Amino acid sequence: MANVAVLGAGSWGTALSIVLADNGHDVRLWSHRKEQAETINRTHKNEKYLQGILPEQITAFHDLKEAVTGVAAIVVVVPTKAIREVSQNLNNILTEKPTIIHASKGIEPVTLKRVSEMISEELTAYDYEEVVVLSGPSHAEEVALRHPTTVTVSAVNMDNAKIAQDLFNSDTFRVYTSSDILGIELGGALKNIIALGAGISDGLGYGDNAKAALMTRGLAEIARLGTSLGANPLSFLGLPGVGDLIVTCTSVHSRNWRAGNLLGKGNKLDDVLEQMGMVVEGVRTVKAAYQFAKEQQVEMPITSGIYQILFEDKTPKAVVDELMSRDTRDEMDDISILLNERYTQ
Amino acid sequence: MANVAVLGAGSWGTALSIVLADNGHDVRLWSHRKEQAETINRTHKNEKYLQGILPEQITAFHDLKEAVTGVAAIVVVVPTKAIREVSQNLNNILTEKPTIIHASKGIEPVTLKRVSEMISEELTAYDYEEVVVLSGPSHAEEVALRHPTTVTVSAVNMDNAKIAQDLFNSDTFRVYTSSDILGIELGGALKNIIALGAGISDGLGYGDNAKAALMTRGLAEIARLGTSLGANPLSFLGLPGVGDLIVTCTSVHSRNWRAGNLLGKGNKLDDVLEQMGMVVEGVRTVKAAYQFAKEQQVEMPITSGIYQILFEDKTPKAVVDELMSRDTRDEMDDISILLNERYTQ
Repeated sequence: MANVAVLGAGSWGTALSIVLADNGHDVRLWSHRKEQAETINRTHKNEKYLQGILPEQITAFHDLKEAVTGVAAIVVVVPTKAIREVSQNLNNILTEKPTIIHASKGIEPVTLKRVSEMISEELTAYDYEEVVVLSGPSHAEEVALRHPTTVTVSAVNMDNAKIAQDLFNSDTFRVYTSSDILGIELGGALKNIIALGAGISDGLGYGDNAKAALMTRGLAEIARLGTSLGANPLSFLGLPGVGDLIVTCTSVHSRNWRAGNLLGKGNKLDDVLEQMGMVVEGVRTVKAAYQFAKEQQVEMPITSGIYQILFEDKTPKAVVDELMSRDTRDEMDDISILLNERYTQ
Repeated sequence: MANVAVLGAGSWGTALSIVLADNGHDVRLWSHRKEQAETINRTHKNEKYLQGILPEQITAFHDLKEAVTGVAAIVVVVPTKAIREVSQNLNNILTEKPTIIHASKGIEPVTLKRVSEMISEELTAYDYEEVVVLSGPSHAEEVALRHPTTVTVSAVNMDNAKIAQDLFNSDTFRVYTSSDILGIELGGALKNIIALGAGISDGLGYGDNAKAALMTRGLAEIARLGTSLGANPLSFLGLPGVGDLIVTCTSVHSRNWRAGNLLGKGNKLDDVLEQMGMVVEGVRTVKAAYQFAKEQQVEMPITSGIYQILFEDKTPKAVVDELMSRDTRDEMDDISILLNERYTQ
């Protein structure tokens, strides 16, 4: 059994700590807020983020150095916008080289960097190839209830992915591996665009047929972008792709779906963000993907439509009507072409 | 504008008649029950199956010969078990050669034939290559409300698929084409297995993570079987594949999901079928797929598990526990292998 630090005591960081503790590891759950760390240690609960009693093997820390000294692995679960800062702080502290695993979903605005890229840029002792991502269809609440959950871990260096697999895999938390970290990270971030779109469709009252169409065509679209950036198109069909997409688009708990739903009901973006009072990662991701698509000359009609709703004041109905009246064509064209390209290189 | 006969006045046949009528075609909606045809013509409603007023261009028929004489196309929407009988009757009547399109989902038990195969075997003037299938994520109720819906039509002979596309395509009913009728028909039938499984998982109270995992891994599994039978794996990622899967697995209106849900809650198959009082296509499809998988030596752990619940009295919980404790491995192995095989032939 190992010592593992989990950085970020939100709902997902707490849930992953539970998985590790159930597997017998000693978990150091780091929070950037001192009161939160103290409350966790006093009550064995983190109720603002997750219901239920935490296992005894979880100890909360506020001091980052104390949290990570002597651990075999560090699991980074802070919001995308805090990744660089936390990594810089880690860089000043670390004297050994524990395995770095992250479970954050997003793309850095402007630079369009993925989380593993940001981490390896800040941690001077680590190459990009060494960083592991953990992603998949996983509501934290259900993981805390020990309901069956499956995720995928991925790194260029498969030995590191296997270390992460061994740490987390259990009877209720099944961990697959993949070597396509690019596809896994892009899928995790880009699926939030489709979740926004699914929310918009539901907000318009368009029903299950429209939502399923949007999810299916949206999946093809993000796979197309991902592939143009070098990802394996198959990654978008796995647990961190279509699996995560299903969980995110069909759950009223999803932040991105909720924001989309409010937009579909006719609210403007500023009002929606104010009403929700928290970061909606998908909104930033739409901007990034829109920029990517232009650079790569990839056709992304759904993403463009959502971009127009968010930033150009177009009505959701006008966007959907336009999507429905595009030229009809062979459904498989897009994916066929990119797979043919890949497999005949 | 054309004369089109729609055979089968259930909810889906009625909804497709509305799409055709909205496009300006004269629709002859055939019912095997005289009273139903008379009620439709008297009231312009078919309320037992679908709410709302029917367009005037729809006329109901009970006489099959009257319904199909002089039409440009026939849309077959009867249950799978009635396909051969209706086709035989057609064979005795037809003097011209209208385009045959079917929108039925299922596989014939024992022979394991698809619907297009059954139709072309009975209609002596038609080759298998000429029959068209129409499939996709489409609740009939939403189509009747003119909510945005997308489907795919497919035939070996693409000219026939394009005829079907032209007949049905509209601003609210978007029709794509595909040349892989094998994949489209198998996807439509096999997805009912996964819907049963999703219902079982929900019946056990396992939550969204487990259901998304089951749908994702289930999709890989039916794609694996379909590919071993000659289908294009990409068909399972399109509207009649993952799209239809999403609609079927996330709707409480789905018959297969409901049957699974009752099984997950601990009911036995006989009681479930009695309680539902109607055909549950997925139960027959599990048997067929199980037989297929044995013949083709394809690994189908989810299908096998559901087979054991249905026919071997294994408890749902035992099956899920077993699925969760299988050896972990590379997630993409299965699909990678079959795509590699396909694209390097």
